[in-house]
Amino acid sequence: MTAKFIVIEGLEGAGKSTAMQACQQFLADKAIDFVQTREPGGTPLAEALRDLIKQQHEENIAPETELMLMYAARMQLLHNVITPALSQGKWVLGDRHDMSSQAYQGGGRGLSQETLAALSDIVLKGLKPDLTLYLDIRPEVGLARAKGRGELDRIEREALSFFERTRERYLTLANANEQCVVINAEQSIECVHQDIVAALHTFYLSVKA
Amino acid sequence: MTAKFIVIEGLEGAGKSTAMQACQQFLADKAIDFVQTREPGGTPLAEALRDLIKQQHEENIAPETELMLMYAARMQLLHNVITPALSQGKWVLGDRHDMSSQAYQGGGRGLSQETLAALSDIVLKGLKPDLTLYLDIRPEVGLARAKGRGELDRIEREALSFFERTRERYLTLANANEQCVVINAEQSIECVHQDIVAALHTFYLSVKA
Repeated sequence: MTAKFIVIEGLEGAGKSTAMQACQQFLADKAIDFVQTREPGGTPLAEALRDLIKQQHEENIAPETELMLMYAARMQLLHNVITPALSQGKWVLGDRHDMSSQAYQGGGRGLSQETLAALSDIVLKGLKPDLTLYLDIRPEVGLARAKGRGELDRIEREALSFFERTRERYLTLANANEQCVVINAEQSIECVHQDIVAALHTFYLSVKA
Repeated sequence: MTAKFIVIEGLEGAGKSTAMQACQQFLADKAIDFVQTREPGGTPLAEALRDLIKQQHEENIAPETELMLMYAARMQLLHNVITPALSQGKWVLGDRHDMSSQAYQGGGRGLSQETLAALSDIVLKGLKPDLTLYLDIRPEVGLARAKGRGELDRIEREALSFFERTRERYLTLANANEQCVVINAEQSIECVHQDIVAALHTFYLSVKA
């Protein structure tokens, strides 16, 4: 069984951290060696870029700038963490990946398909997650949860309509991607957990075969 | 006379700062209102990116990452400084611009024409300098001058062959660009200064007409 790349996606407050824990537990139970990543971030330079992306700035940040910083961080993570791990046979469990850029900078910011594809071609060179769990939640529900956790960052402070466009793009992408499972993240924690474990189990059986 | 965009290009130690001063003097003498920029940099975020690009890192920096950070910085400068200045009728005098990325990341790092064009299309949207003064110098001569000024940054510490490829690309681009004047930067300071002023004078007469 070759190493697999599993990604958790979703809006603020969708429950990605809890889902990451469920995945960690599942992989540990199967005695699968894995590394965990988060985006943007995961290398010293990528974490510095994460800070620049999330902090408030006095100047206007162009959508294209935000996109290039996201992909610069992704390039470092792929080059120095994800690709080496996969080639050593370690699974990779990612808290966000390329689908976030497609949804937030494409859907939310309205950048063109052409611009997104140009960056994604340069950086990913065809790499795709083997399984994506997209935690679907209405923005107003997710943002209320996120606000309860404390101070919102620059992107989290966007208008509700930004997150509505982002969710819409997420759903379009998820429905078009056979390697993506949509999880209803508005259910109780127990039900969400059950759905995640079920999706992981189905995936595990399919790749083990 | 619409506002013009003049750029100074060249390797480390080619004399760009001295050339910038000559240009400033020329524009001041003509009572032309202008803003001065440097790349990467020129806005708070772009300056933060400049620091990340130039500093030493523990991790390997992928050529694509360096390129995307350069263009992210350029996007901010264009969006928040260059475009507003030109539209207000102010000339822009730039210490480096897009030709640097073509020469260093294209020639020096060996990134493909396709990758460079993808980023340049997203960021520049067709904007081109009206005049580029390329200060041509052999890398060994320029680097010896740069070393005399103090500590070298991450890019300045590259091997001589990196700068040879960069210079070769600079010359190819300069020769293919009718808006670019090649200045022999190995001459005496006085002769370089004379050539710069002559190029500015010719340009000024052509756009004033």
